[in-house]
Amino acid sequence: MSRQNVVRLSPSTPAYAVCVLGTEIILDLSGGAPENCEFFTISGSQRVLLSVSNVVITTEEWATVCKPLSDAKSVLVKMVSPSPAEHEDKVLVSYYRSGEESPTAKAVLYVTGIEASLEVDIYRNGQVQVPKDKQAKDQWVWGPNGWGPIVLVNVSPADLGQRDNGNSKVFFSDEIKNLSRMTLNLQGPSCILKKYRLVLHTSKEESEKARVYWPQKDSSDAFKLVLGPGQHSYTLPPLEKPLKETFYVEATEFPSISFPGLISYSVSLVEESQDTSIPETPVYKDTVVFRVAPCIFLPSTQMPLEVYLCRELQLHGFVNTVTELSEKSSSQLASVYEDPNRLGRWLQDEMAFCYAQAPHKTVSFILDTPRATLLEDFPMKYSLSPGIGYVTQCTEDHRVASMDSIGNLMVSPPVTVQGKEYPLGRILIGSSFYPSEESRAMGKPLRDFLYAQQVQAPVELFSDWLMTGHVDEFMCFLPTDKRSGNGKDFLLLLASPSSCYTLFEEKQKEGYGDAMLFGDVRGDQLLSNGRESRSISKLLADEDLRKQNDYVEKCLRLNRTILKSELGLAEEDILDVPQLFCLEKLTNVPSEQQSEKPLARPYFPDLLQMIVMGKNLGVPKPFGPQIKGTCCLETELCRLLDPLGFKCTFIGDFDCYLTAVGDFCACANIRRVPFAFKWWNMKP
Amino acid sequence: MSRQNVVRLSPSTPAYAVCVLGTEIILDLSGGAPENCEFFTISGSQRVLLSVSNVVITTEEWATVCKPLSDAKSVLVKMVSPSPAEHEDKVLVSYYRSGEESPTAKAVLYVTGIEASLEVDIYRNGQVQVPKDKQAKDQWVWGPNGWGPIVLVNVSPADLGQRDNGNSKVFFSDEIKNLSRMTLNLQGPSCILKKYRLVLHTSKEESEKARVYWPQKDSSDAFKLVLGPGQHSYTLPPLEKPLKETFYVEATEFPSISFPGLISYSVSLVEESQDTSIPETPVYKDTVVFRVAPCIFLPSTQMPLEVYLCRELQLHGFVNTVTELSEKSSSQLASVYEDPNRLGRWLQDEMAFCYAQAPHKTVSFILDTPRATLLEDFPMKYSLSPGIGYVTQCTEDHRVASMDSIGNLMVSPPVTVQGKEYPLGRILIGSSFYPSEESRAMGKPLRDFLYAQQVQAPVELFSDWLMTGHVDEFMCFLPTDKRSGNGKDFLLLLASPSSCYTLFEEKQKEGYGDAMLFGDVRGDQLLSNGRESRSISKLLADEDLRKQNDYVEKCLRLNRTILKSELGLAEEDILDVPQLFCLEKLTNVPSEQQSEKPLARPYFPDLLQMIVMGKNLGVPKPFGPQIKGTCCLETELCRLLDPLGFKCTFIGDFDCYLTAVGDFCACANIRRVPFAFKWWNMKP
Repeated sequence: MSRQNVVRLSPSTPAYAVCVLGTEIILDLSGGAPENCEFFTISGSQRVLLSVSNVVITTEEWATVCKPLSDAKSVLVKMVSPSPAEHEDKVLVSYYRSGEESPTAKAVLYVTGIEASLEVDIYRNGQVQVPKDKQAKDQWVWGPNGWGPIVLVNVSPADLGQRDNGNSKVFFSDEIKNLSRMTLNLQGPSCILKKYRLVLHTSKEESEKARVYWPQKDSSDAFKLVLGPGQHSYTLPPLEKPLKETFYVEATEFPSISFPGLISYSVSLVEESQDTSIPETPVYKDTVVFRVAPCIFLPSTQMPLEVYLCRELQLHGFVNTVTELSEKSSSQLASVYEDPNRLGRWLQDEMAFCYAQAPHKTVSFILDTPRATLLEDFPMKYSLSPGIGYVTQCTEDHRVASMDSIGNLMVSPPVTVQGKEYPLGRILIGSSFYPSEESRAMGKPLRDFLYAQQVQAPVELFSDWLMTGHVDEFMCFLPTDKRSGNGKDFLLLLASPSSCYTLFEEKQKEGYGDAMLFGDVRGDQLLSNGRESRSISKLLADEDLRKQNDYVEKCLRLNRTILKSELGLAEEDILDVPQLFCLEKLTNVPSEQQSEKPLARPYFPDLLQMIVMGKNLGVPKPFGPQIKGTCCLETELCRLLDPLGFKCTFIGDFDCYLTAVGDFCACANIRRVPFAFKWWNMKP
Repeated sequence: MSRQNVVRLSPSTPAYAVCVLGTEIILDLSGGAPENCEFFTISGSQRVLLSVSNVVITTEEWATVCKPLSDAKSVLVKMVSPSPAEHEDKVLVSYYRSGEESPTAKAVLYVTGIEASLEVDIYRNGQVQVPKDKQAKDQWVWGPNGWGPIVLVNVSPADLGQRDNGNSKVFFSDEIKNLSRMTLNLQGPSCILKKYRLVLHTSKEESEKARVYWPQKDSSDAFKLVLGPGQHSYTLPPLEKPLKETFYVEATEFPSISFPGLISYSVSLVEESQDTSIPETPVYKDTVVFRVAPCIFLPSTQMPLEVYLCRELQLHGFVNTVTELSEKSSSQLASVYEDPNRLGRWLQDEMAFCYAQAPHKTVSFILDTPRATLLEDFPMKYSLSPGIGYVTQCTEDHRVASMDSIGNLMVSPPVTVQGKEYPLGRILIGSSFYPSEESRAMGKPLRDFLYAQQVQAPVELFSDWLMTGHVDEFMCFLPTDKRSGNGKDFLLLLASPSSCYTLFEEKQKEGYGDAMLFGDVRGDQLLSNGRESRSISKLLADEDLRKQNDYVEKCLRLNRTILKSELGLAEEDILDVPQLFCLEKLTNVPSEQQSEKPLARPYFPDLLQMIVMGKNLGVPKPFGPQIKGTCCLETELCRLLDPLGFKCTFIGDFDCYLTAVGDFCACANIRRVPFAFKWWNMKP
């Protein structure tokens, strides 16, 4: 905020003023001008910047200019740096009559410059810097030409659920790097500074979203909490001399519908009253605005860094194959203890690896949308690699086969849609097409959270026709080399019952009508999963199954068109993957959640639920009809993907895909390489 | 959302498709092409629009084009209007071998066009219209080139606090005009339509903010509530024939921090399943987005329409003068009964006249921020002119001398600040400079409400130094003719103790040091208001009073600089009005609200608290020192304002200004002419 104080100058007595850097003094010379004077000259000492009628007139010390007295009302005085001592800087004015060479009168303003400012990493390069335009600090501007500092949410699992009980906290050097610096700078002669107080403050609401720490002077590693929940104003100790103090800021919450993510801090310079009957006077305020770094999700097209696995006994083959794949893609493998409370299939279903980024630091963390809300129930927390954070986001819908969890979410690779760029891709949420009594959708808290992050504008797909409701059952993104056509470097795989029928019809024509789906699967496994071994010809003759897949095809077509329009995809960006579905009613749910509406499940292990690790794909083994010794579904997938350089490894844990409710390839969760693009360089 | 369904055409069997207007069919000819064919011709019937490789190829019926078969994968079929009967429209394809004149094979697609859409006043001209770009309907865009319909909040006092108990409501014709129309249009052959269902829906959260009514078919004036709180989806009765139904929409809430003001409605076309084992399939969704018209406040520079007055006995002179003024400015005078609960000074202090505007209708209403929250306590409600609405906005701080009410708010005239236009002015809120234990500020709910309206971006001023905390004690806007300098058509009056001292010093020099302030006021009136009659010389000699006014001057200077920078004002836009203040401690408040900090009150009736009615000003009579038979403060104000064409009428109810706590010129409230500028034409 540009401030202008008016000082009236007169030849009879010298005037005195304190000028805070960033403010201007309007010097009114007209009132004190002797009669008949027509001109004045004005000059200033070092550190004083003068301008008359909006033109800067002195750039060097004591340069004198002569101006008509009509300009005497619009003389501005600024300080370019703080004064070393009181009254050290001066403005001299001489008044002249027309034609006379010596001045009729002289007047002087003694001015003392002081500085009070908050400095931050305004240009997002990791350095605390003084901005070119001081007034711009109270705005936060998106885009490559934008500015404004960034603060990270504290995602440390150790700090979870606990508040700082005392007023001080001990930090370890690694944690300090996660914090954003804010420097409070006060400069000027001590005798002047002693007349002022400094107050660091924010609003009550913003104070709930972040904490400001101040290193303690006892040379310990302890930090004092000066602003935070319940404490939105902090008065610094009495000022004795110039100071330059660094504060450290961390956020406690990601942006949400009720919190746009902006937190402003101000330092107010307050003139103490010399008289108890008169209140103090605020004179200057410097404000900086931080934005809380959003929670960013990663698409499967990003390279893997680390694979988390649930080591359940019956998933033995699965675990082994994923271990091998992770070696091939040189990502680290972290195994997680078995978690009985979550039935072992929580990994991808209820949590996702995300990251948050500031210029000084990138943090990876787990975003958990827990069914079990007690933290004790979460063994993965104790198995995370050092430096990986953990955050929970509550949801409202805890029904079985819930759509209200992070598993009902995918991320597209970066796309451009009708000229609008999404350099961090778009979030894809599964939803119902329209609300009704039996429709299911993601709950408002989680949905609002996703929208509030702003940088990956969500798209809602139609997935309520699936038993799990999760979009990952019918789609998957693969990273490719940049293709010559439209320059895209990814492919969208979509489940396609019609491709599967076409394939089976071809095989029947070729004489393989007797080849058996599930021919290799043990009878008891089939039985417990509600499937039976059937020949291609029988499958093709099953009119009910065909009707069900016609329905699924329509649902998929709807999603295909939404995806094409919202992600700017062309037909050549999409690969149809043969996959059959069947309709079943939810059985293992309480009767009040029972619905008459049948829901779709993959008929054979879902090829789309592949684990993508660069060009290495871990694909659920479909146990399809064997033709010349190999499964024709596997052959078809390889025919589609091999030319693009992908290596498919089929993982044969039948039970892993078709157990109880839904189909879980969710026993692995992958931490991936963050986007190279910095989120603050986009305009949402 | 653009939808594309794929239809594979083959010469063996004709294909059939239903095409919803606004969607496209991708016709895949390649699969069915006979061997060795190299070309195809394609033509369509009336209402069919064909394009090959993104080029529209038919603009007239049955125009035939010949294309190489390599283009056969990218043929798009659209309908330009619904078909009158099933299979009425066709696309014909003929396949040719190279060099042969007669086709090798022919294929046909029978297509039936149907339309399902929601239409609204998309171009904000009061007419329900079909937009040029159908896909744009699901966005709401600000600005003169923007689009999107507007819905008004129901501000009728009769509907206050009561919900529609039943499902139907009777409207009167005048109320219908306040509602926004939304037309549901379904066209196509009845035999096709019968296979579908229509569902009108919104989200659960949005349904809480607005109501949608449907006129009942019994030719009564009754309307059925189809969407509203607790009801976010409505299935229309089974479709028998084309329909065009008008629905009426009203909002129930203004935008707020948790409600951005957008409400979307969709109609989903759902294909009924012919088989009970297969679920219905959604096929198309058309969405429109309404924005709730914001609550707009008016500055004192707008012409008055109606004056509401509190007829208290002791305000006799005040009421008479305001009555006269309202006649002069030809605005209507409405008097309001005395309200014992609110001590007669509630009018301007706790409520403001606002308006909300849609292209079809402008509504004026009272926004009340009540201390007494029971509606029974509000007699003004029963005294409002017909058509004037009433809305309450709760506040949290009900302390005496509260800053948490609408009285702590002013509006600037339209301004331009560094190129950014505020065509509806900016809201000016009184606040503390920084938060502390004893600081007072507007509560979050009211403050958030003001920010959420978006169109009058608030500016926070420093007013916590005043006992009332209300900005109207030190500033006032007056309408002027366009001035030659910077083209502004208003002036900002600011209270100025230093101008008052300068004036008094001049008068003392001129020999009027003995002239008495409050010379005409009765002793008992002075006593009960804690004032005494004093001469100019005594006032000038009072060092305490001078110190207090030096402090006030500093506080005012701070506001002057904020106002200049946030409203883009120059010194010549500001007039200094002589006014003295004094510091006192709050006395008539509970001891726990007592503060040691003295607060400022006008020392004599506050010249700034004038009633502005165009060029006629009702100014509190200051009872200043009489010089040559007239008050020198009045003379000075007239000297400043007369040349600009203002007529000052001084209103002499001394008690009206200096009673109990605070200084109330709040016994009148003025309804003013809405801005000519339409809010939707700005970009906030």
